[in-house]
Amino acid sequence: MKILGIDPGYAIVGYGIIQVEGNKLTPLGYGSIVTDKDLTFPERLEKIYRELSEIILHYQPDDIAFEELFFNKNITTGIAVAEARGVEMLVCKMGRDYLYEYTPLQIKNALVGYGRAEKHQVQEMVKMLLGLDAIPKPDDTADALAVAITHSASLKFKDQFRMK
Amino acid sequence: MKILGIDPGYAIVGYGIIQVEGNKLTPLGYGSIVTDKDLTFPERLEKIYRELSEIILHYQPDDIAFEELFFNKNITTGIAVAEARGVEMLVCKMGRDYLYEYTPLQIKNALVGYGRAEKHQVQEMVKMLLGLDAIPKPDDTADALAVAITHSASLKFKDQFRMK
Repeated sequence: MKILGIDPGYAIVGYGIIQVEGNKLTPLGYGSIVTDKDLTFPERLEKIYRELSEIILHYQPDDIAFEELFFNKNITTGIAVAEARGVEMLVCKMGRDYLYEYTPLQIKNALVGYGRAEKHQVQEMVKMLLGLDAIPKPDDTADALAVAITHSASLKFKDQFRMK
Repeated sequence: MKILGIDPGYAIVGYGIIQVEGNKLTPLGYGSIVTDKDLTFPERLEKIYRELSEIILHYQPDDIAFEELFFNKNITTGIAVAEARGVEMLVCKMGRDYLYEYTPLQIKNALVGYGRAEKHQVQEMVKMLLGLDAIPKPDDTADALAVAITHSASLKFKDQFRMK
């Protein structure tokens, strides 16, 4: 089965698609959608909508999992990230019954086995588990692959990670 | 010209379309998109996307204006409203160059001439300016019409209310 992981954002949207066969994980594609700050915010949403639609059309993932959103100190950035995440959820929802989401804690636990793991440890595990030569850049891409890997580890229990 | 006003939300999305000819305002249509809480959140976004698309296709507004989002105390509700607002902005952006937005303060000033006006005063002005028999219900619908009226009052200066 193919899993698409999404690290939501409006300036950078990380994505990563992995193939799961038994315990074997194979990266099929990963990268990031980048929207220029010279665009208006509605134009950025439109760009995300178009590019994410193309990625889904191309890879035809079976399941799509998101990193859950937590607000940091900057509430203005937080609102914009949430607005973009709404668009990303919409694109991903079309033609499928459920979407999945995982908290940063669940992702750290799934990859490193330790909820307080450092970002770098998670990224090293992404590299190792997918047999990559280097940690994917930017961080958003590695984070998206980490979400996809977390979902692959949760397949037996995935109903409980459905977005409600 | 036709103006669509949007009061963003995920449980209720208010909308109101007015026709502007000189100083004359005519309501063409108004109401609200309601999404049931038994739906999953991605399903609610999908419903908003579909119904708002139909409204735009039907009324063919020239300009679309949004109420700007402010966070209240409930940050979880705030995130969900922002996610839905992103979808609403996306739908409204398609096929047009700009979207417009107004703060609650600007809306109160435009309708009542007083930034600290009560909600009820704004609603009474919506009823009066549009020649309606009653205040439209729910509040979200009246609020959406208030945004459209605010935009009609700002047409000479509208460039400064473009979403950036």
